[in-house]
Amino acid sequence: MKARPGPTTRTRIREFNGSVARDRRDDLATEEPLEIRLTAPDGSRKTVAITMRTPGHDFELAAGFLHGEGLVRSGDVAAIAYCTDEDLPPEARYNTVTVRLRGPIPDLPALDRHFLTSSACGVCGSASLDTLRDRCVPIPEDTLRLIPEILYGLPDALRRAQGVFGKTGGLHAAGLFSADGTLLALREDVGRHNAVDKLVGWAALADRLPLAGHVLVVSGRASYEIMQKALAAGIPAVCAVSAPSSLAVDLAKEFGMTLVGFLRGERCNVYADKKRVQTME
Amino acid sequence: MKARPGPTTRTRIREFNGSVARDRRDDLATEEPLEIRLTAPDGSRKTVAITMRTPGHDFELAAGFLHGEGLVRSGDVAAIAYCTDEDLPPEARYNTVTVRLRGPIPDLPALDRHFLTSSACGVCGSASLDTLRDRCVPIPEDTLRLIPEILYGLPDALRRAQGVFGKTGGLHAAGLFSADGTLLALREDVGRHNAVDKLVGWAALADRLPLAGHVLVVSGRASYEIMQKALAAGIPAVCAVSAPSSLAVDLAKEFGMTLVGFLRGERCNVYADKKRVQTME
Repeated sequence: MKARPGPTTRTRIREFNGSVARDRRDDLATEEPLEIRLTAPDGSRKTVAITMRTPGHDFELAAGFLHGEGLVRSGDVAAIAYCTDEDLPPEARYNTVTVRLRGPIPDLPALDRHFLTSSACGVCGSASLDTLRDRCVPIPEDTLRLIPEILYGLPDALRRAQGVFGKTGGLHAAGLFSADGTLLALREDVGRHNAVDKLVGWAALADRLPLAGHVLVVSGRASYEIMQKALAAGIPAVCAVSAPSSLAVDLAKEFGMTLVGFLRGERCNVYADKKRVQTME
Repeated sequence: MKARPGPTTRTRIREFNGSVARDRRDDLATEEPLEIRLTAPDGSRKTVAITMRTPGHDFELAAGFLHGEGLVRSGDVAAIAYCTDEDLPPEARYNTVTVRLRGPIPDLPALDRHFLTSSACGVCGSASLDTLRDRCVPIPEDTLRLIPEILYGLPDALRRAQGVFGKTGGLHAAGLFSADGTLLALREDVGRHNAVDKLVGWAALADRLPLAGHVLVVSGRASYEIMQKALAAGIPAVCAVSAPSSLAVDLAKEFGMTLVGFLRGERCNVYADKKRVQTME
């Protein structure tokens, strides 16, 4: 990993156009955790949030987050800097922003937006994947075969089944499909992650976990959080109508998942595979 | 408010098509908070998350969230029910799900996804707006005039200025415009809320808050969280390329903000106004 993550990350993909495959380079939007810490003149310190973000304008992100939550006004800020702890690896330093306050650290009642714990060595994408390994098992080797010509039909099947979207135009969808393209369940929500939670919860309550052999299709982008939820449910393949993030791709590769993005019309990009995606001939 | 929120909420909008305005009914995707509580056989209880969601399949949402975070496996769940506390108003009961465990409540180290505190009377959209009133002032009366013919050009201006999106196709954007359509600042991120935080943080660090007289344009949908961040920054008008949620519209109306959605081509819908949106003639 390079010392300071940039806003884009180079990767290699397999692009399918109809039944024709072509390997090429592509750029992903970088997704890395950012830890926002407060420090006070008396030396006290506190982590107030860890959020997945695209690197760049990190001091503004910290200042804007603190302002939006009503925690810190710009006049209260003495300085903002990347973490300079010598014991942090370089990549984690640029994922930690320290906001030095002029006064004491405010009370923070249940304001965390954490879904990651901060490890001793600081936050970074690879540390996030390490943490995940403690509670998720990699997807086992399987014989699942995903045929692009079948995948192309899934977003339309999802959209047709979306009841609330049709009325409002305003909902994310997550659908669970079998490899032959049959829609098994669909859930909608204003929050992308909630739609996936509802789908996984449906399977959990029906005692259908893990969802080996299934494909999750999401109407938007594929982020770390979406992939993590799919992994926890044992889903081997995720298809997104829009782009995946760098950390979503890293997670898929690390845990043996297939990740397809930009699934639109008769095209898609395969970012992580495990040899599951194969054309019909 | 009706006792049990449904997935859609009826509203009245003003639709602009070119320079022609028409008032009509429309359906919004409902956004309401859901509080997920755990209870154990010994009577102990704990709130593990409050998340903004679209009502429906709430037990699945709770089960899927707990599974995805690795907190609770489906075998550990004895029952899931809406909260039956007699002292809660009916609308809050259907926004609180209690997951009864067979064993003790697990340790929950910094796993909260809170950005709301649970009030004594339970969570619901109007309680969320009440909480916001404690730390945000309504947008003052102003003379800002928003001309649809100028608004129509903003999404293209935003897209043209998006550097990273052009390379990756995978980023949300938030742009700050003056009323004459001049782009003042743009920020991109894999997270919608982060793009807005960066923009507000830019203004905070440049000592430009509150952003009276300005327009925030977001590339996606307008949720409660986006509107709340705009309000905290004193931004009187938010334009979204996609749909707003019910609670975003409620917030806009409550705090004197203008909210425009589905800003695409030569069309837009005005969901909350304060008489700011007026055609040229």
